[in-house]
Amino acid sequence: MNILITGAAGFLGTLLTQELLKRGQLCGQSIKSLMLADLYAPSRQEITSHPLVKTDVGDLLTRIDTLCSRDYDAVFHFASAVSGECEADFDLGLRSNLDTTRKLLDALRAQQARNVRAPLLFFPSSVAVFGSDPAIPLSDVVRDDTLPTPQSSYGIHKFICEQLIADYTRKGYIDGRAARLMTVSVRPGRPNGAASSFLSGIVREPLSGIASVCPVELSTPVALSSPNNTIAGILRVVEISREDFAGRTALNLPALTVTVGEMLQALKEVAGPEVAALVTVQPDATIKRIVGGWPPRFDCQRTHQLGLKADASYRAVIEQYIEMAEIKRPEGAPRHPS
Amino acid sequence: MNILITGAAGFLGTLLTQELLKRGQLCGQSIKSLMLADLYAPSRQEITSHPLVKTDVGDLLTRIDTLCSRDYDAVFHFASAVSGECEADFDLGLRSNLDTTRKLLDALRAQQARNVRAPLLFFPSSVAVFGSDPAIPLSDVVRDDTLPTPQSSYGIHKFICEQLIADYTRKGYIDGRAARLMTVSVRPGRPNGAASSFLSGIVREPLSGIASVCPVELSTPVALSSPNNTIAGILRVVEISREDFAGRTALNLPALTVTVGEMLQALKEVAGPEVAALVTVQPDATIKRIVGGWPPRFDCQRTHQLGLKADASYRAVIEQYIEMAEIKRPEGAPRHPS
Repeated sequence: MNILITGAAGFLGTLLTQELLKRGQLCGQSIKSLMLADLYAPSRQEITSHPLVKTDVGDLLTRIDTLCSRDYDAVFHFASAVSGECEADFDLGLRSNLDTTRKLLDALRAQQARNVRAPLLFFPSSVAVFGSDPAIPLSDVVRDDTLPTPQSSYGIHKFICEQLIADYTRKGYIDGRAARLMTVSVRPGRPNGAASSFLSGIVREPLSGIASVCPVELSTPVALSSPNNTIAGILRVVEISREDFAGRTALNLPALTVTVGEMLQALKEVAGPEVAALVTVQPDATIKRIVGGWPPRFDCQRTHQLGLKADASYRAVIEQYIEMAEIKRPEGAPRHPS
Repeated sequence: MNILITGAAGFLGTLLTQELLKRGQLCGQSIKSLMLADLYAPSRQEITSHPLVKTDVGDLLTRIDTLCSRDYDAVFHFASAVSGECEADFDLGLRSNLDTTRKLLDALRAQQARNVRAPLLFFPSSVAVFGSDPAIPLSDVVRDDTLPTPQSSYGIHKFICEQLIADYTRKGYIDGRAARLMTVSVRPGRPNGAASSFLSGIVREPLSGIASVCPVELSTPVALSSPNNTIAGILRVVEISREDFAGRTALNLPALTVTVGEMLQALKEVAGPEVAALVTVQPDATIKRIVGGWPPRFDCQRTHQLGLKADASYRAVIEQYIEMAEIKRPEGAPRHPS
C-alpha cells in the first residue's frame, strides 16, 4: 500500500497519519510508503523521522504533477480551504477546493490509465453541504436522501467535489468514497478560519485557562464528532467493499447532537465551574448564519448499516481531548462527577 | 436590454432568439442588442439580417474574454456538450460544460464588479440530473426537494453548474436562475449526440417518410416538453422576480409524462398507420440505461405556483411540430381523429 495524504499537516491529516503508522496496514495490506503533502511540513518528529514517511511541502495545485508521477493505492484528500476563508476570499476557495480537487482527480485518472487499477480516494465532505434555501427549507432530520442546498462557498465546493468524485468513480477512473464529516470537536491547537472553530475553542481554551467567546446562543444545537470517532469512521468507509459503500452518493458520518449549552454544561462537569466560566456568549451574525444553517440532527440508514456510531456523550468527547492533549485537570474538579 | 445567448445556433437558442426578436422586449425593457454566440453561425436569414443581432462564432471557452468585454443585462447560457458526447469523450464534456460555464460566471462576476448591477443568467439544467444510485433509489415522483444523483457525466455537469450558479447568486455576482428542462420533443432538424435524440427522431423522421429506430421499449415512460412550452417556461423563469423564483435551487420545468408507446400511438392518430409503421423498436443497452435512469413523473410545487403547465397531450405536441416544420400531412390521415 502506497498512500498519499493531502493536507497531511492539518489536524485530521496528522491524526490519520499517526493511526496509519500505528496500524501498519490499510485494507489488510501492509503500508509501504506514506506520502504526506501539505503547504506546511509535518511538525511531529515521530512522523517526520518514520522510515515509511515521505513529505512534499508546497501549494498542492502546483505540486500534483510531481506528486502523482508515482502511483498510489489510496489517497486521502484532506487539503481544503476552510469555510471562513472561502467566504472571505471567493477565488482562493475556488482554487483550493475546486481546481485542486479537479487536478488531483485527473492525475489519479492518468494513473488508472497507466496501470489499470483505480486508486481508492477518500474525500472528506462536510455537514456544511446542508443548509436552508427559501425554496427548500432544511428538513428537521437529515436522512440519506436529503437534498443539500449549501449556503456557503465551502459547502458548495464540497458538494461539487462529491459530484465529480461520483462521476470519476462511475467511469472506473477511481474508487471514490466521499463521506460528510460532522464538525470535529475538540480539535487541539489554535483557532482556525472555520466558522465552526469555536466549537472546539469553547472547550479547549478554558481547559488551558484562556478566556473564549461563544458566537452563538446556548440553545443552538450542533452535530459533532470527536477526533477519534471521526478517524474511525473515515477508516471504516475506506476499508469496506465497494458494494458495502452502496452507490456513489456521499455518506453522512455519525453525529452527536448537543446544544452549545450542553457542551458548556459538560465542560463544567468535567473541569469545574471556574473553567466553564471562562466562556462568554457574544453572538456574531456571520457565524450564527453559517453555523445555524447546518443541520443538527441525522438519521441515516447507510451509517447505521455500517455499524458506525456517534460518540456516547459530549463528556466522553471532552475526556478524549484531555487525554489526547494531556491537559492537567484543575485541582478540585472531579474526574467522574455523578 | 443587452442580451447574450450562448449556443445560440442550437435549436432552443434559435427558437429563443426568434421569440425575443418577435417580442422586442424582456422583463418589460426593450431589447437593444442580441449577441448570438456559438461554434456555428446562425443559419436563418431573418436572424442574421436583423439590425439588433450581433454574432460571435467560435469556441466559447476561448471567446468569453472578448464576448464579455461588453456588458449584458441578461445571459442565456445554452452552450453545452450533450449527454452522448459527454459519455463518449470525458475531457470534452468537462471542458464544454464545466470549464466554459465557470469562465462565463467569472466574466459576469467581473462585469458586476465593473458596474455594480448583477446580470441575469438563465441556465438550462436538465432532467438528466436525476438518476438512480444504489444507495438512493429514484423516487417514484420527483418533487422540489428530490435529491439528484446523476448517472451520466452530462447530468453531473449540469448539477455542478447549478451549484456554482447558486453560489455566484448568493454572493450577489449574478442573478442566476437555473431550471431543469424536460426532454424537448419534437425537435426539428437531424439526430444529435444526445441519448434522448430518438424522442424526437421517432416522430420527426417518420413524418418525413424516413425510417427511425426506437432504442427503448414501448412501455418506457418519459418526461417531455414541446419546444414552445419549453421556451415559455424559460421566459417565465427569467421574468419573475428574484423572490418569486424562491431561493437558489434549480426549478423543475413542467413535464408531460407519456410512454414511448403512447407517443407512437399519437403519431398514428395524427399522421396515420403507415407513418407510425416507419418506427422499429430495437433496444440499445447504453441508451436504455441513460434514458431509463431519468425520472418520468414530477410533482413540483414551485412549478405549480408559477402557473407553469405541461403540454396538454402528446398529440398537441405533434401538431405543434407539424405546424412549425410545415410538414405536409400524408393524404388520408385525419387532422383530428376521434
